[in-house]
Amino acid sequence: MAKQPIPYKIYLSEDEMPRKWYNLRADMKEKHPPMLNPATLKPVTKEDLKHVFCSAVVEQELNQTDRYIDIPDEIVSFYKMYRPSPIVRAYCLEKALDTPAEIYYKFEGNNTSGSHKLNSAAAQAYYAKQEGLTSLTTETGAGQWGTALAMACAFYGLDLTVFMVKVSSEQKPHRKEVMRTYGAKVVPSPSDTTETGRKILAAHPDTGGSLGCAISEAVEVAVNTPNCRYGLGSVLDHVVLHQSVIGMEAKTALDKYGVKPDIIIGCAGGGSNLGGLIAPFMGEKLRGEADYRFIAVEPASCPSLTRGKYMYDFGDTGHITPLMKMYTLGSEFMPSPNHAGGLRYHGMSAILSKLYDDKYMDAVSVEQTAVFEAAEKFAKTEGILPAPESAHAIRVAVDEALKCKETGKKKVILFGLTGTGYFDLSAYKKYNDGDMSDYIPTDEEIEKSLETLEPFQPAE
Amino acid sequence: MAKQPIPYKIYLSEDEMPRKWYNLRADMKEKHPPMLNPATLKPVTKEDLKHVFCSAVVEQELNQTDRYIDIPDEIVSFYKMYRPSPIVRAYCLEKALDTPAEIYYKFEGNNTSGSHKLNSAAAQAYYAKQEGLTSLTTETGAGQWGTALAMACAFYGLDLTVFMVKVSSEQKPHRKEVMRTYGAKVVPSPSDTTETGRKILAAHPDTGGSLGCAISEAVEVAVNTPNCRYGLGSVLDHVVLHQSVIGMEAKTALDKYGVKPDIIIGCAGGGSNLGGLIAPFMGEKLRGEADYRFIAVEPASCPSLTRGKYMYDFGDTGHITPLMKMYTLGSEFMPSPNHAGGLRYHGMSAILSKLYDDKYMDAVSVEQTAVFEAAEKFAKTEGILPAPESAHAIRVAVDEALKCKETGKKKVILFGLTGTGYFDLSAYKKYNDGDMSDYIPTDEEIEKSLETLEPFQPAE
Repeated sequence: MAKQPIPYKIYLSEDEMPRKWYNLRADMKEKHPPMLNPATLKPVTKEDLKHVFCSAVVEQELNQTDRYIDIPDEIVSFYKMYRPSPIVRAYCLEKALDTPAEIYYKFEGNNTSGSHKLNSAAAQAYYAKQEGLTSLTTETGAGQWGTALAMACAFYGLDLTVFMVKVSSEQKPHRKEVMRTYGAKVVPSPSDTTETGRKILAAHPDTGGSLGCAISEAVEVAVNTPNCRYGLGSVLDHVVLHQSVIGMEAKTALDKYGVKPDIIIGCAGGGSNLGGLIAPFMGEKLRGEADYRFIAVEPASCPSLTRGKYMYDFGDTGHITPLMKMYTLGSEFMPSPNHAGGLRYHGMSAILSKLYDDKYMDAVSVEQTAVFEAAEKFAKTEGILPAPESAHAIRVAVDEALKCKETGKKKVILFGLTGTGYFDLSAYKKYNDGDMSDYIPTDEEIEKSLETLEPFQPAE
Repeated sequence: MAKQPIPYKIYLSEDEMPRKWYNLRADMKEKHPPMLNPATLKPVTKEDLKHVFCSAVVEQELNQTDRYIDIPDEIVSFYKMYRPSPIVRAYCLEKALDTPAEIYYKFEGNNTSGSHKLNSAAAQAYYAKQEGLTSLTTETGAGQWGTALAMACAFYGLDLTVFMVKVSSEQKPHRKEVMRTYGAKVVPSPSDTTETGRKILAAHPDTGGSLGCAISEAVEVAVNTPNCRYGLGSVLDHVVLHQSVIGMEAKTALDKYGVKPDIIIGCAGGGSNLGGLIAPFMGEKLRGEADYRFIAVEPASCPSLTRGKYMYDFGDTGHITPLMKMYTLGSEFMPSPNHAGGLRYHGMSAILSKLYDDKYMDAVSVEQTAVFEAAEKFAKTEGILPAPESAHAIRVAVDEALKCKETGKKKVILFGLTGTGYFDLSAYKKYNDGDMSDYIPTDEEIEKSLETLEPFQPAE
């Protein structure tokens, strides 16, 4: 087939949108180890999880065998409000870099939540409604996930309480207001509304809170409220499953034009966007049908893959979640306050951790001033002001494109532009004012945090 | 042709994007009266205008005869970074309203400027670069136009100084930061950097500034700086021309599906988005080929069409621009400080003013609490958090759809969703907190402001 000229933006038609999520685990010869109950160090059961999450989500969480899972029609309809999202050919960035590389990005930011998070929020709220629940709880840090779940809950008519990391709720009053406009109740965390919150406040009255602590509070409320469950925006397998819609759309769009990426790059916090973006490509690699280089990009200030250890750890600070085997810095690790934006979770998706441990994927860490430099260049050439998280992927895409310039090799680079930076202008101000600095945790800091995990490792 | 099912979003392909702007004036049997030099009350010449605007723009401003004007390839390429914009079928809003009406909106908010303003910014910056200029100046109130011109100037490598209404620059530090990220210099207005600014500051040291005053400062700097011109984001004929890309895309997309709107609704501040949206439809009406009902929606607090007079007035407060015949509240009119968002300009596009005066178009005014109520409903059902300006059009679209519910008539409604409200969360907070109120200026206020214009009316 003769190559067609590639437009600036490749949009699928609504008929071409995926009707199934792709379940990457089905193609992993070796699955990741199961979640454990911290009291018994035995695998958690469905029943354990069903106190916390709605049933459909628990089934998906534990389904390691079905390669495809149908997307209910109602969720497809919700997706149509903001999907398919475009694959953009970064013609202007290529020109500015004077690189022989072809650069593409899958842009997930064209919705009010400002990111890919809505893909899983739509599913989680839909299932909750289907099961007759009346409310959800969740936590949010940078705010995209809380906004996404607020939007989905407003659409399906569910109440939502969002525990927002206190320092974020103070620094990002506008994020909070978006959630309120969608009807969500936003509670700065730690709060005096939960036992965990009160304990943390008693010990650290001046704390700005953390994601791990907000998770503890949200789970506590969910399990103690009738007809209420908890929704999580990343890390877990069902979230990665929902996010596979990103990669499936991307692959369909690129296939239409005969484009095969050499390198696929995504930022990695909890891992859901990266897992979703790479899913169908990784599937081909796992099945031996094609090869790709995958690069997870994380902040140097919160480097779970590149400097963490592959151990069992809690999902939260309050230690009320099950244990997951993942690359982690330890659930007590706190990224430096000078770190801007998201990607501040101490652990990493169990799926991605396993794939990384099995060498199917590379990881690099980058410092934030270099990230914002790439963000600024991208904004000026491609017109989109990226989220700081997304700019991590931009940084490495630019670096790879510049390598191509040196070597003269024309590689095809695909990266995930997960969102926009419209609520991150305080961080941009710091950068514009020349007041941004980098921070790299010391080995001692990481070791100290990891030590606390030793009692929770099962015998080999 | 059998009607195809209508998708949630109709995207044109890049090949289907317009290559020409449509010049509505060519089809107006009676043109609007010319701009006048305030000193002589004689029509301004090209030479007068070329001190202020770049030449290509002046030619377009005064071209009342060519029906189509080519869009340079370079501008088409710029447009491809964020266009074509979708026509969205508001299935979810229709369902929530339980109306037989079909509702469509043309969504111009999917770009970092957050609005349609980029359509004219791209053109003005391109022409400035072509003519060897090195910098532009402009003013901004709510901030969309300043952001749009900052993006376009960054892309073409031009310096930009934005005079930002002081109260806006204080209330919207994040808007300011977006412009800075794109390399623009943002000066709160009134400033001590211009003669007009110093005069106003001397007379009113505590003023929060106004759009009219910021225009005066920007023009003053442009005419006194080598290789510098001024760019305006609305009101003038060349801006309406550039914005015709909105209507042309909309018409092409709807024609593909055999959809003919009965009612076309847009918010109106200076008039450029409304003029652009309705352009090709109004062209058909002017040529007697089709009929549509057009509705301009303005805030009750700044009602130039519905309560202003059709007179000659200045474009700015400092009285350094030419006189334009337009519906106006008088260049000294200041909307109440309780008015949120844009749509606060005292006058209205000369083209739209003439069409309104000739009864080709209707106008209604709406109060802001009702506007935010519609915005909230829209956000919850359609997922997009609208700009307060755009929500004026939503309000009237909803009202018209509810009329259809009463009468049982199935009308087809098209409205312009000009932008997103991501930088308007202070206003949403006011609404969410129940602290928003309405303000309607008294007849005396308007009359007093209009009295000052009497010396500037030419003899009949």
